[in-house]
Amino acid sequence: MTKRIRLNATTVNGPTVSPGLWRHPEEQAARYRDLSYWRDFARLLEAGRFDAIFFADMLGAYDVYRGSAAPALEQGIQIPLNDPRYMIPAMAAVTTHLGFAVTMSTTYELPFPVARQLSTLDHLTEGRIGWNIVTSNLDSAAKAFGLKEQFDPHERYARGDDFVAATYKLWEASWDEDALLLDKAQRRYADPARIHDIHHHGPFFDVDGVHLVDPSPQRTPFLFQAGSSEPGRQFAARHAEAVFLNTPTAAATKFIIDDIRRRAEAFGRDPASVLFFPKLTPIVGVTDADAEARYQDFVRYSSTPGIFTLLGAWTGLDFDRVGEDKLLQIAEKADTRGLLESLRRSDPDRKWSTDELAQVFAFGTSALTIGGPQRIADWMEEFIEFTGADGFNVAAVIQPGTIASFIELVVPELQARGRVQKNYGEGTLRQKLSGGGDGRLRLDHPGRQIALAEIRQREITHA
Amino acid sequence: MTKRIRLNATTVNGPTVSPGLWRHPEEQAARYRDLSYWRDFARLLEAGRFDAIFFADMLGAYDVYRGSAAPALEQGIQIPLNDPRYMIPAMAAVTTHLGFAVTMSTTYELPFPVARQLSTLDHLTEGRIGWNIVTSNLDSAAKAFGLKEQFDPHERYARGDDFVAATYKLWEASWDEDALLLDKAQRRYADPARIHDIHHHGPFFDVDGVHLVDPSPQRTPFLFQAGSSEPGRQFAARHAEAVFLNTPTAAATKFIIDDIRRRAEAFGRDPASVLFFPKLTPIVGVTDADAEARYQDFVRYSSTPGIFTLLGAWTGLDFDRVGEDKLLQIAEKADTRGLLESLRRSDPDRKWSTDELAQVFAFGTSALTIGGPQRIADWMEEFIEFTGADGFNVAAVIQPGTIASFIELVVPELQARGRVQKNYGEGTLRQKLSGGGDGRLRLDHPGRQIALAEIRQREITHA
Repeated sequence: MTKRIRLNATTVNGPTVSPGLWRHPEEQAARYRDLSYWRDFARLLEAGRFDAIFFADMLGAYDVYRGSAAPALEQGIQIPLNDPRYMIPAMAAVTTHLGFAVTMSTTYELPFPVARQLSTLDHLTEGRIGWNIVTSNLDSAAKAFGLKEQFDPHERYARGDDFVAATYKLWEASWDEDALLLDKAQRRYADPARIHDIHHHGPFFDVDGVHLVDPSPQRTPFLFQAGSSEPGRQFAARHAEAVFLNTPTAAATKFIIDDIRRRAEAFGRDPASVLFFPKLTPIVGVTDADAEARYQDFVRYSSTPGIFTLLGAWTGLDFDRVGEDKLLQIAEKADTRGLLESLRRSDPDRKWSTDELAQVFAFGTSALTIGGPQRIADWMEEFIEFTGADGFNVAAVIQPGTIASFIELVVPELQARGRVQKNYGEGTLRQKLSGGGDGRLRLDHPGRQIALAEIRQREITHA
Repeated sequence: MTKRIRLNATTVNGPTVSPGLWRHPEEQAARYRDLSYWRDFARLLEAGRFDAIFFADMLGAYDVYRGSAAPALEQGIQIPLNDPRYMIPAMAAVTTHLGFAVTMSTTYELPFPVARQLSTLDHLTEGRIGWNIVTSNLDSAAKAFGLKEQFDPHERYARGDDFVAATYKLWEASWDEDALLLDKAQRRYADPARIHDIHHHGPFFDVDGVHLVDPSPQRTPFLFQAGSSEPGRQFAARHAEAVFLNTPTAAATKFIIDDIRRRAEAFGRDPASVLFFPKLTPIVGVTDADAEARYQDFVRYSSTPGIFTLLGAWTGLDFDRVGEDKLLQIAEKADTRGLLESLRRSDPDRKWSTDELAQVFAFGTSALTIGGPQRIADWMEEFIEFTGADGFNVAAVIQPGTIASFIELVVPELQARGRVQKNYGEGTLRQKLSGGGDGRLRLDHPGRQIALAEIRQREITHA
C-alpha cells in the first residue's frame, strides 16, 4: 500500500521565518501581529490538506554568535517573538480539521497550568491540539527565568520525564469518563465520587489536586517532540507520538528514525506508532528552471550573519570566534543536537571533508529541495521510502509564499500519486494522524500506564 | 459635568456563573467550551457599549465548605474552569473596541512569560488588554502548584510588588520607542543599540535579558486589581489603574474607595486617576414588577450549598461546620477580604444584628439590584454619586441573558441620561477608560518611575 505523506507546516510568531528574507518583496511575515494574517494562513493550510501547523518557540534571545544578542536583534532572527499560543483560538475559529502543535517547556513552566491550558485548547478546538514538548536549550532563557545558567541536558530531560508524568495523571486519572451528570432533576452537575485528586510526588514536581478541566476530546493532547541528542532520543522513544526532525541528510534521518523506533520497542511500544516529520524547505517552480531562478532570487536576500545567529543558538558554537575551518573540531565535542553523530554513524565509511561538513551545518539543517512539482514529489517519495518517515515538517523561506506555491503545485501532484489526502479523515488530531483508533493515547504508551498506576494506588489507599 | 458610567462585564470560563442557575432554561453558560458562544457574547457587549470584559479565574478547586471539593464539583461552582486567556483572540477578532482584562497570578506565574503573553495580546488586540493582577488565595491552588500551603497575605503582596516591578522594566525599559528600523536598504530590522537587557534582582524574582516583544500599543497593559484587605488596598493604591470591588453596601464601597484614593495620594499619585468598578448584578424587567417576578424565578433555581461553597472560598470559613449563628464571631478574626471591616468602619455607630450581617455575607457581596430600567438607572446614578465610583463590574445571574436584558433596557436609559457612551472613544483601552492621555502609563505611576530608575542605572553603568 502506498504510504500517506502527512504534512505539517512549521513557523514562528515573528517577522522573520528565514534569515534576511524579511526584505523580500513577497514576504508577508511582518504581518505576524495581525490576527487576519494567521486566519488566512490557517484557511490556506486547510485548503491544502495540511494535517497541522506547528509554532516553534524560544524563550530567550539568540546570543551565541559574536557573544551577544545584537546580530539577532539587527536581523530580526526569532526576535521579536510573540507568544504563539494565542494564535490558535483565532485560527481554530476559521478551520475545522487543521491541527495545532503548541510548544510548551517542561523546564520553564509547571505541570498543573500546562495541563489546564492544553485541555482548554483541546476542548475549544474539538480535539485538534498537539503539545510539542520541549526542554528548552538557551542560556538566555535560563537567565530570563531567574536561573544563573541552564540545567544540563540530562537534568532537563529528567525534569521533563517527571513533568509529563504529572500531566498524564491530570489528563488521564482525575476525571472518570462519566463524571459529568448535568442532571437537572437531581440538581447535580457532576458526580464528585467520579472526580479525583491526583497525587504526584516526583523528584522535581509535586502536584496535589483535581484537574480543573473535565476530559477534552483527546484527554492527553497528541504528543510531539523534537530532540535528536542522545537523551532527547531516549525521551522521544518513551513519550513522543510524533517526532520533528531537523537532520542534515537522508542517511542521518534514517539513522535517527531507526534509533528512536528501536528504543521505543525496548520501552514496550509499537515502533510503527511513533511518527516522524523531517524538515522540508521546498523551493517550488512551475518548472525546475523556474524553481532554480526563484532560489537564486531568495539567495540575494539571505543574511549570512542571520544564518550564523541561528546555527550559533542551535549548536552552542560561535562561528565568528572559531572561524568555519576550526568549527568542526569544536563541533565534535559540543554537538548538542546530534547532528555530527547522526551524520557519521549513518555512513561510517564515508570520509567527510571539512568543507562538506560546514555545508551540512550551514544549509543541510534545513532540507532545501528545489524543483518543479514532479522533481519535488519524486524527492519526497524517495525520502519517505528510504528513511521510514511518515510526513514532512514543511518550512517556509517566505510566508505564506513558500507554502502557497507548495499547495498550488506540489500537493495536487502528490494527491494524484495517492500520497496526500484529498479529504480529511474523521475524528481528533490523533485519529487523523494515526489513521483511526479510539482517539485516546495507545495502551502501550507510558501515559496510560502511569495513569493506571495512579488509579490503582488510589484504590489501594481507599480500600 | 455628568460623570460617565463605565461598564465592565465580569464572567468565568465555566458552566456556572451563579450557583445553581445552570439549571435555568435560559442559561447558556454551558456552551462555555464553544468559541462561537464567546464571539457572540463579545459582539453583544460591544453593541451595548461595554468598555471591557473581565474573566475572573481561580487556580484550584473551592474546598473550604464541608472541608472538601465535593460541593463545588457537584454544583459546578467554578469547576470545570477552563483557562480564560484563550478566549480573547477569538473575541478580539470580531470586535474593534471592547477591552479584555486577563487574570494572571503573581504567586503562581513568573514575570518574564507573563510580560511576554500580555505584550502579545496587547499587540494582537491593538491595545485593548488589561491585566487583572491577582496574588491568588486558595490553599488548593498552592497544593496544585507544588507548595504545602499558600504564602500569607503579606508575603503574597510583597511577591506581587516584586513581580510587577520586573514586568514594568520589561515593558517600559527594554525597547526604545524608535528601536524598530525595518530598513531594507541597510538590511537592518532593528537597532540593537536601542534594545536593552533589563536586570531585575528583587527579593523574590530575578530577570536578566531583553523583552522578547517590541513595544505594544499600551506597553504596560491597563492595570486592574481587586484586593480589599489591608495589604490588598495598599497594593491597589500603588499599582492599580482600576479596582474591581465586591463590597457589601454603598457605605462600605465608599469607605474602600476613599481609603485607596487616600493611600494613592500618599504614594504621589493623582487619586482621581484610580478608577473603581463595584460589582452590580442587575435583575432587569420591563417594569419593576416584571423584574421582581424574574428574581423570584431565579431564586427557585438558586443553590444554597453552591452559595456556601463560594462564600467558603472567599472568606476561608466553613459555613457548614460553624453554623450561621457562630459565623460572625469567627469572621471577625478571619475577615481576609475586609468585608466586615469595611462595613463596620463605614458606619461605626450602626449596630448590626447577626442576621443582618449573615445576609450581607451571603447576598450583599453581589450588589443585586432589581427593577425596571428607571429604577436601576436611578440606583446606579445615586450609587456613583455617593461612592465616587467610576463604573460597574456587571455580573450575570444567567449568561448572556442578564447582560442582554441590561443592554436592551437599561443601557438606552443611561445613554439618554448622558451616563453611558453612545460611541466609543478613540485609542487604546487606557485612553478610552481614562478619557484621553497619550496611552502610556501616567508619569505619577510607579511603573514609569521604576522603569526610569532602571534606565538611569543602565546609563551610569555604561558611562
